[in-house]
Amino acid sequence: MADRDKPVVNLNRAMDALDELWQPQVLAQMNDNDVRIARIKGEFIWHTHDDTDELFMVMRGRMRIEMPERTVTLEQGDVFVVPKGVRHKPVAEEDCWILLIEPSGTINTGAEQSSRTAARDVWVE
Amino acid sequence: MADRDKPVVNLNRAMDALDELWQPQVLAQMNDNDVRIARIKGEFIWHTHDDTDELFMVMRGRMRIEMPERTVTLEQGDVFVVPKGVRHKPVAEEDCWILLIEPSGTINTGAEQSSRTAARDVWVE
Repeated sequence: MADRDKPVVNLNRAMDALDELWQPQVLAQMNDNDVRIARIKGEFIWHTHDDTDELFMVMRGRMRIEMPERTVTLEQGDVFVVPKGVRHKPVAEEDCWILLIEPSGTINTGAEQSSRTAARDVWVE
Repeated sequence: MADRDKPVVNLNRAMDALDELWQPQVLAQMNDNDVRIARIKGEFIWHTHDDTDELFMVMRGRMRIEMPERTVTLEQGDVFVVPKGVRHKPVAEEDCWILLIEPSGTINTGAEQSSRTAARDVWVE
């Protein structure tokens, strides 16, 4: 779309509309980065992003991120950056809505091919 | 700080602690980008970021972004990206708390030197 026609999107309404689990949608792009939102529940797979950090922000619910040397638990409003190259596994016991920031084109499962691998570049409605 | 020691920070508590207006603080860094938060009220100055988009998300309150060809009003949860090179002036009639995403080192007033020009690289407590 033309730059001057960039829309205003609403985070809350976009989260309300998320049906499918573990399928991030693009809320906005800033330079070559995506701001994505996802609804998650259950265990994701262990994976690594060799070339990029990945920022997680919990908007609703809670989750944890398991890493080889530590596990962090994230409550509503908590922000955590998984450094590039660090293997991690996101887990949510109950429904959880998260915001992610990562370079456009980043694959959600990193180098792992999995049934969890999501379509890319799916924008919010 | 060492990558493996990255902290969990809480957006809500960091916003509660913002005293000074128009003084962004860094909540987190992802690759070479800052996620910043700011408390704003009143009119900012007209300025341009020639080399970067700037993402605004309103967390509490409302604001508007005036641009030469349009003005957008942002309510809570609204996200808008000012494209690089587009002159803009943020305005908030009442107290407003925003989240910003832009490359680390981006100066809040762009190329304009102003009393509004903020210290860079100030992290949340």
